[in-house]
Parts: sequence; structure tokens; C-alpha cells
Amino acid sequence: MSISTTPLRIAVIGGGFMGRMHAHAWRTAPRFFHLGRPIELSVLVGRSPDGGDVASSLGFDSYADDWRDVVDRDDIDIVDICTPGDTHAEMALAALAAGKHVLCEKPLANSVDEAERMADAAAAAPGVSMCGFSYRRTPALAAARRLIADGRLGEIRHVRAQYLQDWLSDPDAPYTWRMDRDRAGSGALGDIGAHSIDTAQWLTGDVITAVSATMRTFVADRPVMAQAQGLGGVGDADGARLPVTVDDAAAFTARFAQGALGVFEATRIATGRRNANRIEINGSEGSIAFDFERMNELEYYRADDPAGEQGLRRIQVTEPEHPYAAAWWPAGHGLGYEHLFIHQAVDFVHAIVGGTDASPTFAEAAAVQRVLAAVEASANHDSVMTPVERNPR
Amino acid sequence: MSISTTPLRIAVIGGGFMGRMHAHAWRTAPRFFHLGRPIELSVLVGRSPDGGDVASSLGFDSYADDWRDVVDRDDIDIVDICTPGDTHAEMALAALAAGKHVLCEKPLANSVDEAERMADAAAAAPGVSMCGFSYRRTPALAAARRLIADGRLGEIRHVRAQYLQDWLSDPDAPYTWRMDRDRAGSGALGDIGAHSIDTAQWLTGDVITAVSATMRTFVADRPVMAQAQGLGGVGDADGARLPVTVDDAAAFTARFAQGALGVFEATRIATGRRNANRIEINGSEGSIAFDFERMNELEYYRADDPAGEQGLRRIQVTEPEHPYAAAWWPAGHGLGYEHLFIHQAVDFVHAIVGGTDASPTFAEAAAVQRVLAAVEASANHDSVMTPVERNPR
Amino acid sequence: MSISTTPLRIAVIGGGFMGRMHAHAWRTAPRFFHLGRPIELSVLVGRSPDGGDVASSLGFDSYADDWRDVVDRDDIDIVDICTPGDTHAEMALAALAAGKHVLCEKPLANSVDEAERMADAAAAAPGVSMCGFSYRRTPALAAARRLIADGRLGEIRHVRAQYLQDWLSDPDAPYTWRMDRDRAGSGALGDIGAHSIDTAQWLTGDVITAVSATMRTFVADRPVMAQAQGLGGVGDADGARLPVTVDDAAAFTARFAQGALGVFEATRIATGRRNANRIEINGSEGSIAFDFERMNELEYYRADDPAGEQGLRRIQVTEPEHPYAAAWWPAGHGLGYEHLFIHQAVDFVHAIVGGTDASPTFAEAAAVQRVLAAVEASANHDSVMTPVERNPR
Amino acid sequence: MSISTTPLRIAVIGGGFMGRMHAHAWRTAPRFFHLGRPIELSVLVGRSPDGGDVASSLGFDSYADDWRDVVDRDDIDIVDICTPGDTHAEMALAALAAGKHVLCEKPLANSVDEAERMADAAAAAPGVSMCGFSYRRTPALAAARRLIADGRLGEIRHVRAQYLQDWLSDPDAPYTWRMDRDRAGSGALGDIGAHSIDTAQWLTGDVITAVSATMRTFVADRPVMAQAQGLGGVGDADGARLPVTVDDAAAFTARFAQGALGVFEATRIATGRRNANRIEINGSEGSIAFDFERMNELEYYRADDPAGEQGLRRIQVTEPEHPYAAAWWPAGHGLGYEHLFIHQAVDFVHAIVGGTDASPTFAEAAAVQRVLAAVEASANHDSVMTPVERNPR
Repeated sequence: MSISTTPLRIAVIGGGFMGRMHAHAWRTAPRFFHLGRPIELSVLVGRSPDGGDVASSLGFDSYADDWRDVVDRDDIDIVDICTPGDTHAEMALAALAAGKHVLCEKPLANSVDEAERMADAAAAAPGVSMCGFSYRRTPALAAARRLIADGRLGEIRHVRAQYLQDWLSDPDAPYTWRMDRDRAGSGALGDIGAHSIDTAQWLTGDVITAVSATMRTFVADRPVMAQAQGLGGVGDADGARLPVTVDDAAAFTARFAQGALGVFEATRIATGRRNANRIEINGSEGSIAFDFERMNELEYYRADDPAGEQGLRRIQVTEPEHPYAAAWWPAGHGLGYEHLFIHQAVDFVHAIVGGTDASPTFAEAAAVQRVLAAVEASANHDSVMTPVERNPR
Repeated sequence: MSISTTPLRIAVIGGGFMGRMHAHAWRTAPRFFHLGRPIELSVLVGRSPDGGDVASSLGFDSYADDWRDVVDRDDIDIVDICTPGDTHAEMALAALAAGKHVLCEKPLANSVDEAERMADAAAAAPGVSMCGFSYRRTPALAAARRLIADGRLGEIRHVRAQYLQDWLSDPDAPYTWRMDRDRAGSGALGDIGAHSIDTAQWLTGDVITAVSATMRTFVADRPVMAQAQGLGGVGDADGARLPVTVDDAAAFTARFAQGALGVFEATRIATGRRNANRIEINGSEGSIAFDFERMNELEYYRADDPAGEQGLRRIQVTEPEHPYAAAWWPAGHGLGYEHLFIHQAVDFVHAIVGGTDASPTFAEAAAVQRVLAAVEASANHDSVMTPVERNPR
Repeated sequence: MSISTTPLRIAVIGGGFMGRMHAHAWRTAPRFFHLGRPIELSVLVGRSPDGGDVASSLGFDSYADDWRDVVDRDDIDIVDICTPGDTHAEMALAALAAGKHVLCEKPLANSVDEAERMADAAAAAPGVSMCGFSYRRTPALAAARRLIADGRLGEIRHVRAQYLQDWLSDPDAPYTWRMDRDRAGSGALGDIGAHSIDTAQWLTGDVITAVSATMRTFVADRPVMAQAQGLGGVGDADGARLPVTVDDAAAFTARFAQGALGVFEATRIATGRRNANRIEINGSEGSIAFDFERMNELEYYRADDPAGEQGLRRIQVTEPEHPYAAAWWPAGHGLGYEHLFIHQAVDFVHAIVGGTDASPTFAEAAAVQRVLAAVEASANHDSVMTPVERNPR
Repeated sequence: MSISTTPLRIAVIGGGFMGRMHAHAWRTAPRFFHLGRPIELSVLVGRSPDGGDVASSLGFDSYADDWRDVVDRDDIDIVDICTPGDTHAEMALAALAAGKHVLCEKPLANSVDEAERMADAAAAAPGVSMCGFSYRRTPALAAARRLIADGRLGEIRHVRAQYLQDWLSDPDAPYTWRMDRDRAGSGALGDIGAHSIDTAQWLTGDVITAVSATMRTFVADRPVMAQAQGLGGVGDADGARLPVTVDDAAAFTARFAQGALGVFEATRIATGRRNANRIEINGSEGSIAFDFERMNELEYYRADDPAGEQGLRRIQVTEPEHPYAAAWWPAGHGLGYEHLFIHQAVDFVHAIVGGTDASPTFAEAAAVQRVLAAVEASANHDSVMTPVERNPR
């Protein structure tokens, strides 16, 4: 890798949960990994009255409140978009047009049309672009991908993906922009189901060709809080409730191009499951299983183990041989959630320094968007469900 | 319960895996439980050249090779049908007509029409009838049902059922009647998916009203073995292969009458999963989770546990308070698979002795059959899958 | 194996929990396994006023209330001793002298002296003798023994055995003979720790040469119940309490002859642990780990798995290749506790029919007794504990 | 908490694994937590030829190669000692004498005498001092301590602590200072067993009064590497081997002042266990169990849960109610190993800013040292092991 002392100067747009996570990643990546170029946290763009303090506490040199003033500044190299999905297209297109490298949170956009335009612009632009499907950077999943890419699972037959959360199980959990279709695009589907779709296509190296879907909103409206803690609640008026215009849960079966059968479920009301981002893949020669609630573990089954000694082995994915193994991190000392973003930052910078494509490209993310669109179309399709005949007697 | 010294005389039809399991249950049930009447294993009906020896080794007084000679004998009280699904209707109807108590293995039949006729006959007949969805007799699932029936999970929102096996993962696993649509009705769907459907409807006390399904056969033909060990292989000719006319795997989403969203998957090719009959149910107030590979454990989550102390508790369902707790079985000393059949025998005899309905009734089993039919119809329905739009560029 | 139609006629002494378990095993073993000779449950010896009914319900032909009348009867071949430890020596010596085959529950005796005399008598007697360390017959542990005997773990370095129960955690759990030193010999140590010692020596093929022990009684007295459910409570007087003269818990470190380091713990007051009979063995080439609460699973680690793919594999020990696999029991359909006794009966009969030694022999069981004695001696030894120096300042 | 803009200027002594971990913690703590004063990474003290680059890459302003030049500098407020145990006393005493705040890695020293002198000096010195038993800062263990301190486990009866690693299982794992008694004090005992001792005493609020111990070195010598990766290998000569002068494994039973029975085991050769720092505590009212390999989970058992619903609940210790919950970290998004050090830094700064004692104090760490000394004395004590009598026959 080439080495340069010219820093990469970063503008992060969005000071919410994701913006802060990205800031931590940019600050920390150079301490654990060799990046090839220095990193500067130049500017945080947000909408907070105390934005300057927030920016400073997160390590940024400055703060701005209008992203339009930032994306084409000469002293910015990377635009990192951490805002709700309805704003992605406009921001990303402007940044790409200005020649910036663009890292954009997922889902890439709120519509296929937007996503396609972004993918086209990215393909034509000089900068590196990447969509933030950060779970790809989980070491256990990256290890799973290696196994699958090496043919170790044989023919892929089953993809079983569940992303289960429960923070909306309580009907009085506060309203945020994530419940607003106009801003978030969809609910559990786009927020967390999008991760499962991307992970499934990426792990298998295959694409979903058709889906059959069901979606439901169990809680019709939610209270508005003056200040919803940490998750972007809006501040209208206490006591009032706003209608939820997105799904609480989505489920669908899927067919993959190479024949695998998929079952997907995304929900934010699965009581007791805090962040169970799970995927299991069964092939003719083996299987892998993963649950983000135990993110440092990968279960791996080899069908060619001797009879009587077969079983899923619980691999602690913290060894020197594993993806993203930092040189001085001893085996068995697990990583946490934020490392997904650290690894993502590393890969993004390496693409810039190496002049290569970053993955997932906007085109890959647009492919996820097309699956999301098909899921929504299917769920709204009258004939998708076959009624169970009632007993006539 | 009334007590009588007049024995219940039993004919078991079928000397395969299930027949032998039922024989063990009939022999053992009176040793662990108070039944109210003695049990006699009168006759085993089979098709084996050494049937007499098999019958004797299983504890039967005699052996017969034609069920028609047995079902209306005066010295038989219970007809226990353990044959493939294509024979159930004829046998059960004859036994019911002869006034016998009838226990019939699942699935109840190979078509809705047959199942409905059986249910009608059972309703009109004097004897007790029951379908062998034996997993209802798993202590952990019976404990789960109590919790749900007591309202402890609140409003039921998610039903997530997987029945994963892998004994057909190998393309050279031998052909048996279970791969023959004419005899088995369907493949993974009817064999094991039927259990999931029954369990789901029984646990929730709700019914599935509509489904959207996908099914696949991954291995198109299988070798014929002269003698397929223990699973009913047929004995035509070595070297030959027969076409598989049933599904290897089935997946479907479902809607329940009271609003819950269901996701079901049944497969016999999930490499590494030997008998993972799993179900998880999420309600507004709690959740339960179960996996038959750890059949003595029930996971239970209470949303009203104090904040910070919430978590799925792993209950060992082996305590005096639990369903089917035999009086002298100490806590923590787990039960095995055969106890499902022992418990089933106990419940069946109690229904006879108590003059009550046995559950699942043939009507309940016919309701499962209607769901199976809807799944098959849906999977064959052209418009069930919504294609994912290809990138036009 | 030779085959004979001459039945083996069995007398079981003791109608408590163990007697009933053995009766079930004798009844059931011939149904699952080929034994070579028929089994007859001839007589149950007990002390119950309704002994005849108990005997009948358990499948015995007759009942007797004095073992002395039974052990030398001509029509008895096997004497199966299921009484408290203080009675074992007298019964077993009489039965051996009468030329019977003798199966004796563990611990073999309440003292080394008794145990040695029994071992000597057994060695000299014509009959087959065996001590009921039934956990050896757990398929998962038998599979572990095969791996170790085959050298798959390399040099054995660590033995880590815990047997954790909690049925005496409640200070008001009723008094039984198991709390009486005169009858039970010791408490948790002899009741369950003896299993761990036998399992450890058997699995490793090694012997414990020295121990350093600590024992404690946390609950000094317990209430006497008129009828203690299922565990042999004695019926003196309600309200009264009797002193507990045995240990609630015992812990010791151990050295093995070939160099392994052992850590053992046995307790009946480990709140939340119902029957956690656990053992882990680490060798230079691999490890095994087992917990009876998941009795169908063996964890196995191979140090020669490729780097990055190493992990404990969870083997479901229910496959045709596994010890005690009944021919028609499908994989993944777990066994329960009683199968230990079924397998024990099978092995005992096979030793009789084959004319071979049964294992564990009385000599092996006496070796366990010597370890128990050393543990007690160590725990009563003033200088075994090294005080931690108090801060003088 | 008072707030000041005067920074705390830190010198970290030691640029190995621990020094780098501490550097990360100091850099990161202010980003996640409100500390009350800014942090400056002033100087790294090391022995590396490229120390300046290392210091810079870790975020330090400068580098020094002699700690004596640093510990009394006016522009240093905190001295953070991350070197082998044989150097702790001299460094800490000098820093305390210079009025600095001192954070010292564990074990506090290599002898009780040194530890006592350090504790005395710390008590008399104006600065805050603390020993780096970082596992106390695991959220799950801090949550366990709250439960125990609140009396939720009742009377504590069992402490069962294992710290199992396997990085020395291979006899050709390279020699480092950790195998040298003169530098490391002891082997597995002081390196990881010390953590278990501290955790046990801290969680229970009790002290160990006596021990009975066994220790072993299984691999007598190890190869010397020119550069042992990341773990401080010394660079003498390839091919040579140096004798291991410390234990590979240590095991001991323990008595606590308030009556609990302890069992401890520390090993670096438990094949398959990468970093299984486990502790289970059983009390009369409940239990907790923890394994660092799943560091975000705490198992908790309540004996007062309703009968039939009892079981260890798996709590994900990532919720707002849990210790060290950062304000914007969503539930179920697990933390990694480095957060122990971040939390430690936070607590240390809070003690400085608040003028309170930091815990563990040097006195608490000296108490651990006394237990370590008793363990070694016991293991060297001829009469600690009671021989198992050999069969005289």
C-alpha cells in the first residue's frame, strides 16, 4: 500500500447515534490499523443548538449546520453521510459531483429510483463510494464469507436470516423519525431487514430474484417526547401521539438465483431479543450460524468431519488468522459493536489509498434497495397470501 | 378418575419406527403413571416376514399381517395407526365404524378431503380418537402452553417455527416411502412441518388463516436400497434410483386470526441440524423459545422483570410443577424422546377412562391438513413470488 | 455372543428411587437391545406396607420383605442391590457367597474396609459383579472415553469435575437417610462426588494418588417429615429436626498418577443447578466437556483443526456411531436419564452371557472408596489449609 | 462532580500490550463519558528503538526511555504503570513520593512485602492510587456485584472461579518474561489467577482466610524467539530454549471469612479455552454465573422465582440500567475487552476529580498478594496433599 502523509479530511453529516459512532471509528481506526494516510476529523454537520460542543467532544475541528456549505469545500476529502434515508440521495449526489469520496449509511436511499441514480453517479464519479452495511465488517461474518467463497459449504441451499429487536415492543416507546415512512422509507424492513438482505447476498455471493412477503404494524401510534433519548426523538409536544407509518415487522421467503431458499424476518417487537441479528446458511457440505448477540462467535459445521464427531464448532473469531485481527489483540478477548465501524473506516480508507472499489458499492446497495422494494410490493399484493380454507361444516 | 381392572387391549398397525415407539409407550406408560385401567399389547399388525418375532420382542401377544382382520375384532379396544399417511383414512374409518378408540399418527391424512371425512366420522363415533402430534406432549412445550393460556405472554405477535433436519442432505441417502408423494402426501412439509403447524396453533390457541409458501426439492432422485435401515427403505434393486416426488424443504409466512405473524420452515437438508424442532413466540408481555435438541429446556422471558434484570431464563422442565412430572423423577434428570409417546398414551387412556375428548382431535388435525393444503397451493401459485426488478442498466 | 433361552431371574433389593429405576431398566433393556438371554423380574425386596402393589406395578412377579430370604434362592440369578450404602457389604457378600451375579449401587460401601472385603469376595466368586456408577453409561461420556482411549486428547493435563445440585439449598428441605452419616457414609461427597471420581478415573484411565480437601455442612439440621416424597424421608414426627451429620459440599484438588491436575467439587446446595454433573478434560491435543443437564451433547475440541477454524464442537451423541446407539433410534432424538440404567443392565447381562468381567468391578469401586476416604481424611486434617496472612498493620 | 478545564497529564510506563491498551483507554474515555477534566497523553515511557513512532501512533505527545526522568516531572499528574511486576514497587513508590496519582497494573507486586510497602505509601500519599484489576470494570461483573451487595443472593456459600487460557498449551509457544519467576512473580497464578482472587473477594465483599493449593509446570522449557509477537518475547537467540520457572496451572480450594467455600483454578494450558475467565457464586437466595468469553452476558438465578419458572436468566448487560452504560449505546450492542480499561480510566479520573479513594486500592491489591503468597506456600507444603491409600493386595 502506498503511504502518504497528506491527511484525509472528513466531514460527517449527522450528529445522532450513527454520526457519533462514525466519529469514534475515524478517531480510532488509525490507532489499531495501518491506514496509509493520516485522518483528520474536520467538520461535523448537525442540527443541534449545542453543535459546537458536540463536535468538540467527538473530536472534530469544527461544526457546521448546513451540509450544503460543506460537501464541496476544498478542504474536505471524505463526506460521511449519517442522516435519515430521505436525505441520502441529495447529499450523496452533491458530494459525488464535487469529487468527494462518499461513505453513506444504509439503506442507501428510500426508493429504488434514488438508489439507482446514486449508483450511476457513483460509478461515474472519481471518488470512492461505499454504503454503510457495517455488519459485513463483523469478523465472524467476514470469516463466514471466506469459508463460503472457498466452497467450504458446497452448494448453498438454505439462507435463514432473522433480525430481532424489541425496543418497540412497548406501545409507549417514543415516536422517532424511524417510525415515519417519509423519512425512514420503511420500518424494521429498511432499518434492520436491509442488513439481513445485504449480508445474505454478500455471504452467498448470490442474489435474491423473487420474494413473497408479509408486513405488519402492531402499534398504530406512539407518544411524542420532548427529547427522545439518544435515538433522534422529535420534540413537538408531550402527551400527543403520532401515527406510525412504517412496519413493526416484516417477513418474507425468497429465492436466490442459484437455487437457495431464503427465509427472512425483521422485527423491532420480538420481546426479549435486544439485537439478535442472526443468519444461518446450510450448504451441501457444511453450515454456518451466527447471532450478533454473541458477535465474537461463529458456529461452523463440516459435513466431512468423521461420523460420530460431527457438530457445530463454536469458533471464537478473535485469532490472528481471522479478518480484521489487530496485530496485538490476544485471542479470546472479544470485540464490541463499534469495531464494525472501525473496520469499515479501515476498508474505506484502504480503497481510497489503493485506488480500488469499496464494497458494498452503491450498486450493491441499490440491489438491496430493489429487494426492499419487491418486499413492499409483495406485501401490498392482494394475492400473495393463500387463504386457509375454513371448515365448511 | 374411575378405576377399572378391565384391560384396554391394543392393536398397533405398523411395525416400523413409529410402531415400535408406540409399543414402547404402551408398555411403559403404566409403570410411570396411574392410568385407571390396565394395558394389554394384544396384536401388532405388520408386513414383515419375521413379524411374529418382532411382535414378541416388542411385547405383543400376537401378530397379524392384515389390518382388516384386526380392526373390528371384539377383543380389541384401541386401534393405534402407525403407517404411512396414504393408509390412515381407510384404517381409521373402519376402526371408528367398529366402535374402537383410534389413535392415528400424523399427518392425519394425505388430503383435506380424507381428513375431513375422518374428522366427521370421529365426531360421530362412540370411541375416543386422537391424532399423534406427539410434540404436544413435550413437557417444555406443555409448560409453554400453560404460560400462554394464562395470558403470561400478552398479545401474541410473532410465531417463529423451524423444524430442521439433515438426514436427506446427502444426495445418496436412500429412497424410502417418505420421498413418495403418493404415500407420504408431501415431504418435509407433511413429515415435520405438520408438527410445527400443530404446535403453533395449539400453543397460541389461534388458527392460521392465510399463508404464502415456497417449496423446493434439491435432490431429484435417490438410490434404492435393498434394506434401508430403520426408516422403511423399500427393497427393489441396488444401484437403481427413484425420483423424489416430494419437497426437501418448505418455507412459508402465515397470518393468524388474532393478528400474529408467522414464519415457518421445514427442511430435511439443513446440514448439521439433526432434529432442531424449534419454536419461538413473542408476545407483548413475554416470549418463549424452545429447541427439541435441548428438549428438557424452555426459555422464558418476562417483560415485567425489573429493568436491568431481564433475560430469557433457561427453565429445566423436569420439576414437580411441570406437566407430565412423574412423581418420583428428580429435577434435572432429563427425559428423552420416547416420553412424548408415553405421555401421549397416558393422555389417550385418560380420555377413554374419563369419557372426555382427546386432543388433538381429528378435527384439529384436519385443521392442520387445511394449512398443509394451503401451503402446497400457495407454493404452486404462479403469482406468489414477486420478482426483484433487475437493474436495467 | 451366545444365545440362550434360559432366563436370568432378578431380585432387586430396595423399592426406593433407585430400585424403581433399575426395575424400569430391566424391563426395558430387552426391548431395545439384544441381550442373549431373557430377563425375568422375579422379586422385589422392600420395606413398604404396600410392597406387593409396588412390586406388581413395577413388573415383578413377587415381593419379599427380607433380603436374607432371597439372596440364596435357587430361582434367583442376579441380585441387584439398591439400598443405602450401610447395607451393601452384608448383602453383597451374602449374594456372592451364594454364587449370584451381583449388581450393587454406588458408593460400593461406607468404608474402605468394607469395600475391600467386597472386592476380594467378588474376585473370588463365580458370579459377575459390578458397581452401579451409572454415568459411565451416558453415551456422551462413553464417546469421550473412546476419544481419550484412542489418544485423541494427547497427554491429559487437567480434569475439572463438578457435580452441582441444589435440592438441599433450602434449609427446610426434609431430612432423609442421605443426611445421616451412619447410613449414607458421607453427603454430597459420596452421593454425587463419587460419580465424579469414578468418571474421572475411568475416562482418563488413570488413578488419583493424592488429594487436598475441604468439606462443609451449611445447614446444621433439617425437619423430619412424616413422608418425604420420593427420596426416602423417614417418618418420625412432624416439627422435629434432626442433625445433618454429612457434608453439604466437598471440594478437593487432586493429583493423578500420570501427572494430570484435578479439581473436584460436589455440592447439593448450588442454587439453580439441578443436576449439573460436569466434567472437562484438557489434554495436549484436545479437550472434552460435558454437562449432564445437556446429557445428549459432548463438546470436543481438536487442537489440530486448522488455525482460525478451531472451536469446541457440540456433538449430539445420538448417532449410529455412538456407544449404546439403539438400532432404530434416529439421530437428534435425545435420550433421558433412565437410559443410563438400561445401558448398565445391558452391559451387565452381556458380561454374564459372555463370561467376562463387568466394569466397574468391585475393585474399581473400592478404588473410588479409597479416594473418598482420602478426601475425608484430608478435610479433617488440621494442616491442610494454609492461612492467608492477615495484614499486620 | 466538579468540572475543571485543567487537563490531567498522563505518563504511561510500558509500551507493550498493556501500555497500548491503557493508551487507547485514555484516548477514548472522554469521548464516551463525562470525566470532569480533560485528558492529555503526555508521555509514553518504553524501551523500544522506535519508541517515538510508537508513542506518536498511540497518541502521546512525547516519548522517554527512562521512567526515572518522568515520574517526578511537574507536567505529569498521573503515572500509569504497565510494566512487568518486578518493577512495580520501585516505580510506584517513586511516583507516590512525587505526589502523583498512580495507576498500577496487576499483580501489584511480586511479593507481599513489596505490596505492603506500596499500600502503606499509597495510604500516606496525597495522590489517588489504584491497582488495575480491570475485570472489575466488566459491566456484567459490576452488575453482579450490585446484586450481591444488595443481598439478592442471600448467604454466600460457593465461589467457583476458573480462569482458563490455552496459549501455552503448545510446548513450542515462545518464551516471554511471563515464564520468568524473577520478573513475573508467578505464572498462571499471578497473571490470571490474581484476577479471579480479586474478583471473588470484591464480588462477595468477603476475604479468603485459608487456602490449600496445587501448582504444576507441564512444559519445562520454551523456545526463545528473536521477536515474540505482542507478548513481550525477549530477543536472545533463535533455537535456544529457556527454562520455565513459573506454574502453567494452579488450583486451590479456599475458605472465606464468612463461611463460603471457594474453588479456584488458573491455567494457561486448557486446550480450547482462549480466555474463559469464569466465576459462579451460589448463595442461599440465588446465583450468578459469568464467563468472559461471553462478556456481555450475566446469568442470574433467583430462588424466589415461582416454582416451575425458575432458571438462570441470561441478561445482556448492555442496558441503560447497567453499570458503565454509555448514554447513547443501544441495548444488545455488545462491548469488547478494551472497555474494561476505558471504564477503569473513567473511575480513576472520577476519584481524582471527586477527591475519593479509587478501588481497588493498593491495600486491596496487597490483600490479593497475600492470597497469592499463601497459595504458593501451600503448594510447596509437603503435607498439603493426603495420599490415596494404595490397595495393599
